[in-house]
Amino acid sequence: MLQVLERSPFHITDSVEEAIEGCKLIMVVTPAFAHEEIARSCARHLEDGQIIVLNPGRTGGAMEFYKIVREINPEIRVTVAEAQTLIYACRRKGESEVVIHGTKKTVSLAALPSRETPKVLEEVNKYYPQFTAAENVLETSLLNIGAIFHPTPSLFNMGRIECQDDFKYYIEGITPSIAKILERLDDERVRIAKMLDVKTLTTREWLKAVYDVENEDMYSTIQMNEVYANIGAPKEANTRYITEDIPMSLLPLAELGRLVGVLTPTMDEIIDLASTMHNKNYRKEGRNLSKLGIDNMTVDELTRYVDEGSIN
Amino acid sequence: MLQVLERSPFHITDSVEEAIEGCKLIMVVTPAFAHEEIARSCARHLEDGQIIVLNPGRTGGAMEFYKIVREINPEIRVTVAEAQTLIYACRRKGESEVVIHGTKKTVSLAALPSRETPKVLEEVNKYYPQFTAAENVLETSLLNIGAIFHPTPSLFNMGRIECQDDFKYYIEGITPSIAKILERLDDERVRIAKMLDVKTLTTREWLKAVYDVENEDMYSTIQMNEVYANIGAPKEANTRYITEDIPMSLLPLAELGRLVGVLTPTMDEIIDLASTMHNKNYRKEGRNLSKLGIDNMTVDELTRYVDEGSIN
Repeated sequence: MLQVLERSPFHITDSVEEAIEGCKLIMVVTPAFAHEEIARSCARHLEDGQIIVLNPGRTGGAMEFYKIVREINPEIRVTVAEAQTLIYACRRKGESEVVIHGTKKTVSLAALPSRETPKVLEEVNKYYPQFTAAENVLETSLLNIGAIFHPTPSLFNMGRIECQDDFKYYIEGITPSIAKILERLDDERVRIAKMLDVKTLTTREWLKAVYDVENEDMYSTIQMNEVYANIGAPKEANTRYITEDIPMSLLPLAELGRLVGVLTPTMDEIIDLASTMHNKNYRKEGRNLSKLGIDNMTVDELTRYVDEGSIN
Repeated sequence: MLQVLERSPFHITDSVEEAIEGCKLIMVVTPAFAHEEIARSCARHLEDGQIIVLNPGRTGGAMEFYKIVREINPEIRVTVAEAQTLIYACRRKGESEVVIHGTKKTVSLAALPSRETPKVLEEVNKYYPQFTAAENVLETSLLNIGAIFHPTPSLFNMGRIECQDDFKYYIEGITPSIAKILERLDDERVRIAKMLDVKTLTTREWLKAVYDVENEDMYSTIQMNEVYANIGAPKEANTRYITEDIPMSLLPLAELGRLVGVLTPTMDEIIDLASTMHNKNYRKEGRNLSKLGIDNMTVDELTRYVDEGSIN
């Protein structure tokens, strides 16, 4: 963070126009449910050549953002990119403070279209050398492990979450039975990636890559991970693990499944139960194929779109 | 219980044949998942005119039992009946003891076919005057409130159930968000009853009728019920609230919905998630329309079947 401060002195404003004027690189660091509103409010103020990085995009962030900007301001030429995960390990502290515990060693990033990724990295690596190139935004979007780890254990622990019981989210909250559901969800995610010809990791491979823990099934692998040992659980039914990770993570994954013809029964059950519970239509409000701007595309057209920015 | 003991001295046997020989009235008091096995083991030993009462039947107990007996022993003429709920309030104590805390004041019962209900009541009321006539086995089956109260809160509290955490099942386990799912399940159940022209109670009406508690929604009504205040939660993932109440309660309800053309998306999500979690095919193992012997029936045929015992 200091590194950035040395280069660009603070300027705080609540005017989107003022915030982005003359900036070559715009980094959006918010929960993914804010991306739509941010895209709408900045679309008319963007300047040709600007780069917007969603840090992170969750699933489909760049596609949703790009679609909104194009609709509102068809003439503008900007590049939207998404990080695979948030580059910071941080937590909010009080109303207006954030504590950054650390910066991740490496985070992949892709532009939409992916032929712009080198250009984006050239710019962003000046400040964050940790970012590396992903193949395209499908790769960054599909490796959203939060979609596996967040909504489902929250649902299966909703009783104690809503009672504000104090428990360890991963270690106590992901029991063997719940881990079985996570394995099924992960199978569905990996199958979608395969159909899209996008390289991904199973959640267990990801746990090995990120935390160097390895065991025979998801449950015992999670139990081994010391980083998870003290992570507490959310304390309200409207936890971001559901309100962000159903519409912005699990739904767009299931929607990509629909596009490629992979059945996602377990994802669908979780999405629909969360919708019932929160009295929301997450399928309509969330990142469905239409909001991603890719409805009616074939798999080939989608691949061409994320790589070249056009299906024609 | 004493009442029964005075009339019929104890005789304990592990031979089904010996147990039922010469008995006019056979009462089966087991979890519903044992009904299939009991039907199979007694089918060849039954005698014309015997009455079998499932206490209770859960959903579809009499239909499943009757179908198995007919298949194995087509010539036999017996009457199968089901109680709407267990007539006792009791708990197992240790390996071989049951403590009966009380006997319910009134429990409805129906024979299959329902024209036999008066004959069954005449016999059973000698020992249990509490049994009263239900319209037919659809009424007793559809008023299975355990289907609403058991599997869903168990799933949404699976984390702490599997951790063997001590919590109050109803009061702490059914939080406002979870109660919303229960309301949706109950709507589906009531809609099925309506399509079958069977009188039923909503769960809130049932809480009023049984416990005299009344409030504006399911959550606050449950919170008011002092009888629920101290009921603890199960302590294992394989709780009977799921292993009995998915295949023998919620599944046959959803299957009846399918027969009458009522969509049951919330029931289906719970059934399928429980199947994934327990690595079981509850749709195949449980009381589906085929096991109930009513697949391919129209609504009219089903009504005729439960009332007259035949669809011809």
